[in-house]
Amino acid sequence: MLKKVLLGGLGAALVLTLGILLGHFGIQSGSTTPGWVQEVTRDVDEELIQKFISEVDNMEIQENLRELTKVPHMATTAGDEQTVQYLLKRWQDPETGLDQAWREEYLVYLSFPDPKTPNKVTVESPTGVVLYTAREKEKVYGLDPEDPEVVQPYAAYAPAGHPKSDHLVCKLCQTSSPPRLGRLVYANQGTPSDYAHLNQTVNLTGTIAITRYGGAGRAQKAINAAPYGVVGVLVYTDPLDINDGKMSDTNETYPNSWYMPPSGVERGSFNTHFGDMLTPYLAAKENTYRIPQANITGIPPIPTQPIGFEDAYALICQLGGESAPPEWQGAFNCSYRYGGPGFRPDSTFKDSEVKLDIYNRGEIKNSSNVMGVIKGSIEPDRYVIYGNHRDSWVHGAIDPSSGTSVMLEVTRVLGRMVKQGKWRPRRSIIFGSWGAEEFGLIGSTEYTEEYYSKLSERSVAYINVDIAVFANATLRASGSPSAQSVILKASKQVKTPGSDSISVYDNWIRYFNRTSPTYGVIPNVGFLTGAGSDYAGFIHFLGVTSMDISYTYDRSKTSARIYPAYHTAYDTFDYSSRFIDPGFTSHQTVARTAGNVLMRLADSLLLPFNCSDYAETLEGYLQKALELYREGLAAHKISIEPLQTAVSRFRSAAAKLEEVIRDLDLANETPLKVRRINDQLMLLDRAFLDPFAFPDKYGFRHVIWASSKAGQPTFPGLADAYSRAASSELGRDWEEAHRQLSLLSQAILGAAHTLGDVI
Amino acid sequence: MLKKVLLGGLGAALVLTLGILLGHFGIQSGSTTPGWVQEVTRDVDEELIQKFISEVDNMEIQENLRELTKVPHMATTAGDEQTVQYLLKRWQDPETGLDQAWREEYLVYLSFPDPKTPNKVTVESPTGVVLYTAREKEKVYGLDPEDPEVVQPYAAYAPAGHPKSDHLVCKLCQTSSPPRLGRLVYANQGTPSDYAHLNQTVNLTGTIAITRYGGAGRAQKAINAAPYGVVGVLVYTDPLDINDGKMSDTNETYPNSWYMPPSGVERGSFNTHFGDMLTPYLAAKENTYRIPQANITGIPPIPTQPIGFEDAYALICQLGGESAPPEWQGAFNCSYRYGGPGFRPDSTFKDSEVKLDIYNRGEIKNSSNVMGVIKGSIEPDRYVIYGNHRDSWVHGAIDPSSGTSVMLEVTRVLGRMVKQGKWRPRRSIIFGSWGAEEFGLIGSTEYTEEYYSKLSERSVAYINVDIAVFANATLRASGSPSAQSVILKASKQVKTPGSDSISVYDNWIRYFNRTSPTYGVIPNVGFLTGAGSDYAGFIHFLGVTSMDISYTYDRSKTSARIYPAYHTAYDTFDYSSRFIDPGFTSHQTVARTAGNVLMRLADSLLLPFNCSDYAETLEGYLQKALELYREGLAAHKISIEPLQTAVSRFRSAAAKLEEVIRDLDLANETPLKVRRINDQLMLLDRAFLDPFAFPDKYGFRHVIWASSKAGQPTFPGLADAYSRAASSELGRDWEEAHRQLSLLSQAILGAAHTLGDVI
Repeated sequence: MLKKVLLGGLGAALVLTLGILLGHFGIQSGSTTPGWVQEVTRDVDEELIQKFISEVDNMEIQENLRELTKVPHMATTAGDEQTVQYLLKRWQDPETGLDQAWREEYLVYLSFPDPKTPNKVTVESPTGVVLYTAREKEKVYGLDPEDPEVVQPYAAYAPAGHPKSDHLVCKLCQTSSPPRLGRLVYANQGTPSDYAHLNQTVNLTGTIAITRYGGAGRAQKAINAAPYGVVGVLVYTDPLDINDGKMSDTNETYPNSWYMPPSGVERGSFNTHFGDMLTPYLAAKENTYRIPQANITGIPPIPTQPIGFEDAYALICQLGGESAPPEWQGAFNCSYRYGGPGFRPDSTFKDSEVKLDIYNRGEIKNSSNVMGVIKGSIEPDRYVIYGNHRDSWVHGAIDPSSGTSVMLEVTRVLGRMVKQGKWRPRRSIIFGSWGAEEFGLIGSTEYTEEYYSKLSERSVAYINVDIAVFANATLRASGSPSAQSVILKASKQVKTPGSDSISVYDNWIRYFNRTSPTYGVIPNVGFLTGAGSDYAGFIHFLGVTSMDISYTYDRSKTSARIYPAYHTAYDTFDYSSRFIDPGFTSHQTVARTAGNVLMRLADSLLLPFNCSDYAETLEGYLQKALELYREGLAAHKISIEPLQTAVSRFRSAAAKLEEVIRDLDLANETPLKVRRINDQLMLLDRAFLDPFAFPDKYGFRHVIWASSKAGQPTFPGLADAYSRAASSELGRDWEEAHRQLSLLSQAILGAAHTLGDVI
Repeated sequence: MLKKVLLGGLGAALVLTLGILLGHFGIQSGSTTPGWVQEVTRDVDEELIQKFISEVDNMEIQENLRELTKVPHMATTAGDEQTVQYLLKRWQDPETGLDQAWREEYLVYLSFPDPKTPNKVTVESPTGVVLYTAREKEKVYGLDPEDPEVVQPYAAYAPAGHPKSDHLVCKLCQTSSPPRLGRLVYANQGTPSDYAHLNQTVNLTGTIAITRYGGAGRAQKAINAAPYGVVGVLVYTDPLDINDGKMSDTNETYPNSWYMPPSGVERGSFNTHFGDMLTPYLAAKENTYRIPQANITGIPPIPTQPIGFEDAYALICQLGGESAPPEWQGAFNCSYRYGGPGFRPDSTFKDSEVKLDIYNRGEIKNSSNVMGVIKGSIEPDRYVIYGNHRDSWVHGAIDPSSGTSVMLEVTRVLGRMVKQGKWRPRRSIIFGSWGAEEFGLIGSTEYTEEYYSKLSERSVAYINVDIAVFANATLRASGSPSAQSVILKASKQVKTPGSDSISVYDNWIRYFNRTSPTYGVIPNVGFLTGAGSDYAGFIHFLGVTSMDISYTYDRSKTSARIYPAYHTAYDTFDYSSRFIDPGFTSHQTVARTAGNVLMRLADSLLLPFNCSDYAETLEGYLQKALELYREGLAAHKISIEPLQTAVSRFRSAAAKLEEVIRDLDLANETPLKVRRINDQLMLLDRAFLDPFAFPDKYGFRHVIWASSKAGQPTFPGLADAYSRAASSELGRDWEEAHRQLSLLSQAILGAAHTLGDVI
């Protein structure tokens, strides 16, 4: 009986267990957890990140670069179209491509020299004999074949012209002596103070000024010159600034080293605003309103031409006049003189004039962005954007194709994971291969204009990798302070080239570091204060948290302004593979780091942005503003206290949000709560926008990161307005300083409001 | 055995069932549905809406109004402070209050007459004898006691002054005859064409112009006059325009009817922009930058004073000169003449002048908004905002206290449901009792400036109920087209006053209707094209989908411009309860309708906005634009095609989104998908903002709803620019028309992008 009972009990127990199991797992009912519950709480997968890192291949990057640099691909040329097709092919590849890829076209205003009538710079004797002619093209060294598609060096957007005295329009002309035209003067870097200084000694009316790159923006050298009656500007790269003094191509410069050969010329866009110049705030489409070309501002008002230092040497070392001050001296083995104006009486160019014959012309051309997306699975309406321009000046192996090769490797690895069904990001990823960046960030800017609303609402971040590798010493990164943490985190997970143990982070901190009040010594993530690459439209115009990532120099080894082949015909695959990153492991490191950041932004359940790091930056800026401006403002009855209050409220709100985040039980929170916090983090940079803050600066709306002339590590609008007011002492300038202080305080306070309790 | 087996089987089945039940309901495990899953899919509860409707009480509204109108409560006066305290008391009530209530203060620029030196309007004979003095205050009829706090009628922001010829600054003066000052002329409504017409007959230099309300904005009457050398402006309300011609207070006007008594004067703010005038785009705080008062634009450049029609009669009927045209004639029993300038030779005022002695002064005063919130349970970071101003000119029983009484009844019913734990909205509700609206929507505008970022990111909608009841005939509503559907839905659920069967909708459609291409005949929801009340900052500056709701006239019964006691001392509890809404059932109906809309916006799982209704509106506007402008633009080589494309893309994108919505299985969708669609709907109006579209119009950024002079039911910026260009035929004006067309097309296309596939 006992046995029976036991057996019966056992049987019952088994049946009961079966029932329990059936009941628990076997019944689908109304209260069953919907399938999406697990899905919405999915977080970043560290194993996939490791997989990504391991699959990024330096040789793939090398081959990408080889393909991209086969021909010169200046914006809107046939070579550019070849790269469009290549990008489309890669991104539409069924095995390694993206979900979708397409091109977007804009009709943009560009400027080109006339291939049939090249620009000329000559020295002409008083009798009209041409004594000297500057090179029209850079010397070819045979390693890269001579290519008729290499564009003659020119100053894009500088006007055509043959400077004549009847064209003189100047505010500051010294009219005591009758103007003779074409006398050469040396104006150092062409800054306002350089011309002011020069003008104390030399009558600039009717002169041609030769200037060296650096110190002032390209267009600025001519804009600053024109008020003095200067009729033309030459610009060259002094070997002191780019070549550590090296000048000889027989053994010192490329193809023997990375240094610029004597005939190398930095091309560039000579403008101060970004985006298509005829369609400010409007995407440049077929029937879009265009401003009259005469209304364009921020370009040279007088003919301007860049030349090599070989030609600059021939001109500068023959100048007469007084010796220029020590800080004006470059690397030439002669004394740099102001010019008499004009050449020394004992020179072969005595009494000769410099003639500029410039034939540049503006053209409206069709420029393409190539776009590609990986659609997000859970939050497709959140965009992480990764981009780089595609157009170069010549072959552009470094600028921009180092970045494009890296981007293509990132998309190859991610695309394959997607195509194989191994991965789909939480958020959508948009890749942009921008057109016509070299002419003023045009493709990316038109994109931000056309999709302003959509991008404002949904963009989590923009990652820019333009020149991926300037040099192979260390990572360099700039960005919005809230992005610092994710960049640092990614950099700790990637090894530095050629090492199994030293992380990118550990290497980086040796080259660039700062002492953070919060973290102690950490790598220094810079700020995106200018408009140096395609991040400008994103951070300044859209207020999207942005970053710019690259590998760069060991500054103890060179004082070059930038890599010496920059914007020259020498920026080739050969140059890059021999002198910049042999083996392409620095490229690989950038791909791994930027890709890691990208994956974290796309996959993290909670966005990896730290708003307290923003507070730290604002506090640093505030400290500097108090130091520099508090007293001066107070003397004009302007209290800086609202700014102090705003920064301190921002700090508290950020701390409070960090606390909410710390207390989150991520796996069990409602997805709407996580989304709410993510929105607070995502929209933080948006809160710093004020479209009326800088009425004279196209596209600059971010009151913390706008460009500034004052050169102080503090709030740009306040700094510039204060410096103007302090120098003019005009009431209206002090009013503007006060206005800047108020709008800045309001923006910071407004940002704090977005971080605090949601209601 | 069979029995045993059966029994055993039964037992086993029972045990199995027990097990199944235990397994299904008894085990908490990792895969159990989290508690928030049900919560996040909660939708609007129709029973709660019915409960709300039934609890809204007309007698409560009556008592609210009695309390609010005890004393005059002009902005920043002691009476205003009393209403602040009352609102705070009500919203902090432990039984019927909100979660939280507080005040927010701004230091704003207001304008007041000098109580010690009242403004004077007199007729002075050539020998300096005062022949006539206009009333300083309105006549008291004893039903409302005389209150020293009743402000003298004045034109806020009109400058102080005693017009003298040495102050003459005019562009269009006829200087042939020496100016004599103070000669009266009648200038109809003071529009530009009125003055142009008058100027053909009369030399306006040095004259005082008397004008009637209507046709042009208050400030405009003086702004339009000044260029002709007019030195002062009087303004009055003609009985034709407000009283259906009635004039006698012995039996025709208040206190015998709702008509304005002869001494009644419409006060008002004489400015054309909204918001605090010294702090454009900045919240007016203690240390905020303020523009110099001399830089204020949009206010009368010359002294201006409003008077009653009793005084206007005495002046106008004695005027000399030619008879004015029929459309200039009002209800007075005399012929309205232009003025000689000045009075008739046979009048007692012969050769006399009109003297204005205006002592208005600007003051920076502390104005409060009272804010209250009910925190949302599921999406607290989404705000539905409901507001009305609190300040009046005098007792303000209708303007604004009808709206405030309604708001207080809405908050009483909702607050009690919250306090009793019966309800908590899905989204947060913010109530705003704005200060200083009468001076130019100041409180609400400062609020939108201070919290710009937070409100831009999170506001679902703004509901404005200012004057809740103009009259008791029918509902009237204006709003963004996407809000049409929720207003119509709510209006179907509420019964019209005094009926158990006729809905507000059924009644409304009889008074205001239109034929929609989509729906056929429906009530006509108007557009928010101007800045008539506190919605301006929300729709025009923030781009938040807004609505304005009230009860209003049977236009077949009166042609009054507005209710006749508007902005007079007669806008009292007595007036409202006897002539506007006896029994307060229209107030109740507005509370029920607006509250219903509010609850739907706050509780609906999917926002009740319809983007296809927006498409219908845009198509209507496009049709009109094609009709009016296509040819003229084409003649200037401007193609309207981008606008056509944009509207058509908007229509497709809207249709697509509606399809996605139709296909939703709401109860089972992931909350992030619903949120995504809600964000698309919520942010739709935001996509129409362009801060640079209307550089001369403070706060107007919404390219569809900005104010317009052209008076055409089409896109305002294009309409105004086209009309200017067509009349001037200047190249730059056609350029501006083209720019308007481009920015409009881009905004509509940008909005379409936000409605389409999220990626």
